[in-house]
Amino acid sequence: MSDTLRLGIAGLGTVGRGVVRIVQEKAGLLSARAGREVEISAVCARDPARDRGIDLSAYAWETDPVALARRADVDVFVELMGGADGPALEATRAALDAGKDVVTANKAMMAIHGQELAELADATGRCLRYEAGVAGAIPAVKVLTEALAGNGVERVLGVMNGTCNYILTRMQSAGLSYDEVFAEAAKLGYLEADPTLDVGGIDAGHKLAILAAIAFGTKVNFDGVHLEGIERITIEDISRAADMGYRVKLLGVAQMTGRGLEQRMTPCLVPANSPLGQLENATNMVVVEGDESGRIVLQGAGAGEGPTASAVLSDIMDIARGLRLPTFGQPAATLVERPAAMSATPAPYYLRFILDDKPGALAKVATILGNNGISIDRMRQYGHAEASAPVLIVTHRTTRADLDAALSQMPATGVLAGEPVAIRIERL
Amino acid sequence: MSDTLRLGIAGLGTVGRGVVRIVQEKAGLLSARAGREVEISAVCARDPARDRGIDLSAYAWETDPVALARRADVDVFVELMGGADGPALEATRAALDAGKDVVTANKAMMAIHGQELAELADATGRCLRYEAGVAGAIPAVKVLTEALAGNGVERVLGVMNGTCNYILTRMQSAGLSYDEVFAEAAKLGYLEADPTLDVGGIDAGHKLAILAAIAFGTKVNFDGVHLEGIERITIEDISRAADMGYRVKLLGVAQMTGRGLEQRMTPCLVPANSPLGQLENATNMVVVEGDESGRIVLQGAGAGEGPTASAVLSDIMDIARGLRLPTFGQPAATLVERPAAMSATPAPYYLRFILDDKPGALAKVATILGNNGISIDRMRQYGHAEASAPVLIVTHRTTRADLDAALSQMPATGVLAGEPVAIRIERL
Repeated sequence: MSDTLRLGIAGLGTVGRGVVRIVQEKAGLLSARAGREVEISAVCARDPARDRGIDLSAYAWETDPVALARRADVDVFVELMGGADGPALEATRAALDAGKDVVTANKAMMAIHGQELAELADATGRCLRYEAGVAGAIPAVKVLTEALAGNGVERVLGVMNGTCNYILTRMQSAGLSYDEVFAEAAKLGYLEADPTLDVGGIDAGHKLAILAAIAFGTKVNFDGVHLEGIERITIEDISRAADMGYRVKLLGVAQMTGRGLEQRMTPCLVPANSPLGQLENATNMVVVEGDESGRIVLQGAGAGEGPTASAVLSDIMDIARGLRLPTFGQPAATLVERPAAMSATPAPYYLRFILDDKPGALAKVATILGNNGISIDRMRQYGHAEASAPVLIVTHRTTRADLDAALSQMPATGVLAGEPVAIRIERL
Repeated sequence: MSDTLRLGIAGLGTVGRGVVRIVQEKAGLLSARAGREVEISAVCARDPARDRGIDLSAYAWETDPVALARRADVDVFVELMGGADGPALEATRAALDAGKDVVTANKAMMAIHGQELAELADATGRCLRYEAGVAGAIPAVKVLTEALAGNGVERVLGVMNGTCNYILTRMQSAGLSYDEVFAEAAKLGYLEADPTLDVGGIDAGHKLAILAAIAFGTKVNFDGVHLEGIERITIEDISRAADMGYRVKLLGVAQMTGRGLEQRMTPCLVPANSPLGQLENATNMVVVEGDESGRIVLQGAGAGEGPTASAVLSDIMDIARGLRLPTFGQPAATLVERPAAMSATPAPYYLRFILDDKPGALAKVATILGNNGISIDRMRQYGHAEASAPVLIVTHRTTRADLDAALSQMPATGVLAGEPVAIRIERL
């Protein structure tokens, strides 16, 4: 390695362009802080001819990312192409194999192939960093890996998909339906090409799996994340939950339990006056509860050129400064496998029923809940002009199994107009 | 240095006890994460006989911290005694001189002697870390130094003294006077031995000066911090400001301006619905605005055994893992001197007057404001049973000089009953 740190950047979309721009515009700042120059040797993108609004003339061009990853004049391979497999994975392997450090923004690749890549990085003695893959500008990976190194982590939670949070908060503030706001978000370019990555919770689930591996010293296990998207959240539930003092969030939660590692990325209710409840628009938030530190809350932009490039630069600057750590904070060989918890930690639930306006309807529902060991904390019945009435119930802590048993017995009562809704209320 | 990282801990108060406890209880976790053992060789405190509720029998005892700092079996000198000068400073110098790394929680020492100590650390090639000195468990130093290394920092701000925030939020929630809540805080043990360190803004000012040095690559300059305490904040102003949608905070703000480096630690109003406005009790918050990252908000416990020890361990673990940086993020010799800005960036102000109930009283006040180029954004006059009436004014952006000029002309009107109050409204 020469004294100058030489980058090879694969992928010149929004983030790649941001990284090139920062390296060019802030050369003096970066070298003052790193104690060495940070320069770009070569770049790689599908279409060299396209005008990206940045001057790339000083850099060598590669059309094959694997060739870029292997170049002798590249110290750090910066993977900003995306995709869990394919060229990104192939080039990352090639770079580590060739003795290059790797910086990536690719959460899918890290969530699915993180263990293999971490082992490869350890074997070749290289760094594999991915701060930009988790919650944009928020230094979630660094804080968890380094700042909380003296803590047993009790829980990691957060809102890690800005698009979902935009949709949910916009539904509430504008009183619009999911479909209406989804269409808006699509028009604004907020959605991935495959929108289920966003609204299905997959993208946020990738991030959660990565953070869980660091927090608990486990092999990253995206398949162990219980995923549920926001597609079925209605404006009705958002408004009703607000009446009860809650906000609906696509909330990721990871915690180690006696039943195994619990990883959930599901719609949850959180208190409206909590930091998570107050999180508006596309902002992200990661909360880490350490057994010594107590609760640390991190908030920032989860996407966008500047914020994501800022996180990529954080990793590049660490490498430039010689700050080197194993991929998940400890050697990959020491990461353990923990079974995925088959059930979620008991919690209170918000339930919404539409009951036929018949005598004894509410009693039937309450009886079934009681028979399944579920007690009621708060209840609210709304006035109504029609033949059916919405009833909201906040339960005391219960298991999802007991709740599902109760819900399955509800149709037989014959008093329900429509499907009941159940949303977990996460303890904060 | 042996492969085991050997600590010498000076000071066994709350934080020191926490560090010893974590090193003992979490030995396995620490070694898994650091890739080496972390152990305590020796400790130092005034009274060896005192029962601290932890087993210290395995460690050598020193009564002189300088002797501890120089011990051959100590790799890292952990300074937890406090005090800007005296034994803490002497022992820190001795440790660096003797080729030891130093971890400290001592904000006063770093704010006042940081430049000298950083130069000494550079000269001897050692690390001097102080995460626990700034905002307790919040990784403000690490985030600013490392995570935002690719950013020009536009502004650093925050609530960095938990006691002051406790007093201000408690005054509001309980409707109590400053003196009443101050007495409560004293009884709860929330106050420093010299309470002006807390309520006079000195402690928080130390923290701000440290963060400013990192953010702007300047020599730490505590003398350049404009300090104003919370002693003169009344429940009247807290309530009135709340009516106008604001909260009163002891707010630190550092930014580089054309007029020099602006560092303020003063009572300010912030919007009630902002993260800073919503910060309750003794919690701390540090906000960093990077030109790429956008706004990053960090929230956590600012004090206490676990949170502060967690931050000390963050530094110890960085050293154990070989993560080594210059004290303020770049070599001390490259830190520049910038003049302190002699005036604050223009801002809107909240003004409270008590006016005699005479015709034309308000007009006289408004005229003076107008004559000094200060325009009124919002005004509110309260009903009153007495001969004088409170009037609240929120101005448009103005300089403090224009405002002071206007305020100095007010007594001559003869319509003021009592001293006017002016509190800056910080832009968020």
